[in-house]
Amino acid sequence: MKLLEQRILEDGKVYPGEVLKVSGFLNHLIDEQLLDEIGREISVRFCGEHVTKIMTIEASGIAIACATARYLKAPVLFAKKSKTSNVSDNCYSASVKSYTHGNVANVIVEKEFLTSADKVLIVDDFLAHGEAVNGLIEIVRQAGAELAGCAIAIEKGFQDGGAKLRAKGVRVESLAIIDSMTDDSLTFREQN
Amino acid sequence: MKLLEQRILEDGKVYPGEVLKVSGFLNHLIDEQLLDEIGREISVRFCGEHVTKIMTIEASGIAIACATARYLKAPVLFAKKSKTSNVSDNCYSASVKSYTHGNVANVIVEKEFLTSADKVLIVDDFLAHGEAVNGLIEIVRQAGAELAGCAIAIEKGFQDGGAKLRAKGVRVESLAIIDSMTDDSLTFREQN
Repeated sequence: MKLLEQRILEDGKVYPGEVLKVSGFLNHLIDEQLLDEIGREISVRFCGEHVTKIMTIEASGIAIACATARYLKAPVLFAKKSKTSNVSDNCYSASVKSYTHGNVANVIVEKEFLTSADKVLIVDDFLAHGEAVNGLIEIVRQAGAELAGCAIAIEKGFQDGGAKLRAKGVRVESLAIIDSMTDDSLTFREQN
Repeated sequence: MKLLEQRILEDGKVYPGEVLKVSGFLNHLIDEQLLDEIGREISVRFCGEHVTKIMTIEASGIAIACATARYLKAPVLFAKKSKTSNVSDNCYSASVKSYTHGNVANVIVEKEFLTSADKVLIVDDFLAHGEAVNGLIEIVRQAGAELAGCAIAIEKGFQDGGAKLRAKGVRVESLAIIDSMTDDSLTFREQN
C-alpha cells in the first residue's frame, strides 16, 4: 500500500534495537484518514472471505480493526490483556510475549463471543516475531473457529513472524513489508 | 441516544457492585454499526467546536474515539497505560485509578503530539467516578491545550463523576445516562 509506505518514509523514526516508531500517525496519534484507507484496503483483500469476526489485541490493533470492520461489516473482538471485574471467568486464553512492553501477557477472550461458527480475520498494527498473532490464532483454535487470515499494517520482513505463519499455510496480508531497516534507510518488499 | 439505550436494555448485563457489562457490543465485542452511529452522534454534538485532537485512554475508548474522528476529521490521540520501548521519555503524565482493573495506572502522552495550539475532545466508553476523564483533563492542562468537552457513551449518573465535571464548567455530553440500576431495571435520564 503505497500511501502507508510513503507515510512511514516521511514520518516513521528508526531507533536502536530495530524499533520503528510510527506513533505520529498509527499507534499513539492516529491519522483518521490514513486509518480509513488502511481499513478499506484490508477489506478489499478479504472481502470474499465472509469474515464474521475481526480479532485483535488491545490496544494498538483496535483502531485498525475498527476501520476494517466498518468496510467488512463484521464486529470487532479484541482480546484483553488483563481480567477486569466486568469479564467473566469463562474465557479462552493464550500467553503473548511483547517485545515493546518487555513482558508476557495472558490475553483473554470471553467464550460467549467466539464460537465454531465464526470465521476470523486477525488484524494488528505490527507483525515482527508473530507473538501476538500466534496468541490470537491459539484462541481461534480453542474456539474451534475458522481462520480467514491475518491483515497487518506493517510487517518487519527481516524478522521471522510472517515467514513462519506463511510456511504453516496462514494467509498473511501485510500492507507494508519492511525488508531492511537502518537509521538511514528503509527498504520495502515489492508487492503486487 | 435511543439506539444505545435500547441496546443497553437488550444486551447489557448488571452485576453486583454496580457493574454494567456491555462487553457484547461496546468494549470487548464491538458492534461496528452501533459504533459508527455513536461516532456520528458525538460528531453532531461537537461539530462546531473545531476540535483538533480526539483524546482517550487505551483500551476501550479507542474504538469510540476512532469512530468519532472519522466524522470530525481530526486525529485520535490515545493515552498509554505503560511506557513501551517505542515511547519517548518526553511525556505528559497523570495518575488514573481504575475501578474495573482495581489499580492505579500512570497514563502518558508524548509531548510532541499535544500542544497549546490544540483544542481537545475527550472521549470514553464509560463515565462513573470520572477518574479517567480527570486524568486526561490533567494532561490537556499540562499541554496548555484547550478543552472542548467530553463525549461519553454511557454515564453512570448515580455516581458523581459527571456532576463534578459539569459543576466545574466542563461540557459533558453522554449519549446514555443511567440514573438508577438494579438487577431488574435500568432508568435512563431524559435528555433533549
